[in-house]
Amino acid sequence: MAIEIERKYLVRSDKWRKEAVGTAYRQGYLTVDPERTVRVRIAGDKGFLTIKGKTEGISRSEFEYSIPLAEATQLLDTLCLRPLIEKVRYKVNYSQHLWEIDVFAGVNEGLVLAEVELESSDDQVELPPWAGKEVTSDPRYYNASLSKFPYQSWDKE
Amino acid sequence: MAIEIERKYLVRSDKWRKEAVGTAYRQGYLTVDPERTVRVRIAGDKGFLTIKGKTEGISRSEFEYSIPLAEATQLLDTLCLRPLIEKVRYKVNYSQHLWEIDVFAGVNEGLVLAEVELESSDDQVELPPWAGKEVTSDPRYYNASLSKFPYQSWDKE
Repeated sequence: MAIEIERKYLVRSDKWRKEAVGTAYRQGYLTVDPERTVRVRIAGDKGFLTIKGKTEGISRSEFEYSIPLAEATQLLDTLCLRPLIEKVRYKVNYSQHLWEIDVFAGVNEGLVLAEVELESSDDQVELPPWAGKEVTSDPRYYNASLSKFPYQSWDKE
Repeated sequence: MAIEIERKYLVRSDKWRKEAVGTAYRQGYLTVDPERTVRVRIAGDKGFLTIKGKTEGISRSEFEYSIPLAEATQLLDTLCLRPLIEKVRYKVNYSQHLWEIDVFAGVNEGLVLAEVELESSDDQVELPPWAGKEVTSDPRYYNASLSKFPYQSWDKE
């Protein structure tokens, strides 16, 4: 088991894009119960099964297993809850940290989120100029929530 | 992915017991949604994560992955739904088939079920004398149901 500690931000400009290389992600959930989510993910040409516990503050327990690509595809196509989440994930180094920027597609088109993984809860992060409002604690931005209440369906005022 | 095809019976005598060797099972669920159950199991000293689809007739899809014993223990102790299922599984050959006899303990104490795995839905089974009523299609006997509505809580008239 790993402990995942991360902060999440909206993205307010495209300045991060210039040399970033993206990987296509397709993922779905077998349960979106916040106490124990089970996610199937295809990242590029690799399949994963990931179990996450309840978020406590900015951290949560995580168990991840590689699974054959063909089985990940079957699980996504036949068993996972609808809709699936599609996004392209870009990795960008800024200052001391690696940032992951998710550009959502499909039912979450229009949403761009940046995540930074931390060593500990009090690890200090230097914010890049393209990082906007922090949304770490806003459950609407959890990927499990986005599969249930996609961004395109939000009342954005 | 495998297709699991099985029939399940109550057990009406102890005649199968004489030379049967049992293995302790401890298992729990991350979701008991009948369309997509996710089970964590420790069988003897081995850990497994198993995803099963909806039962159609007597068959259902099944995806099983070995996971480290320590992680299976953590998942059972911290994330799985309560109560956990405890049982001892015995394997008995009878005629052309391998039977698995589950003697439940804990909250399901008193329940004994026999399962036989088949090659196809129309595979003929010769019933052992100790096999009682068939309960294949009775959802109360699904292990996922037994974790939600344990045998000890049933109104047995």
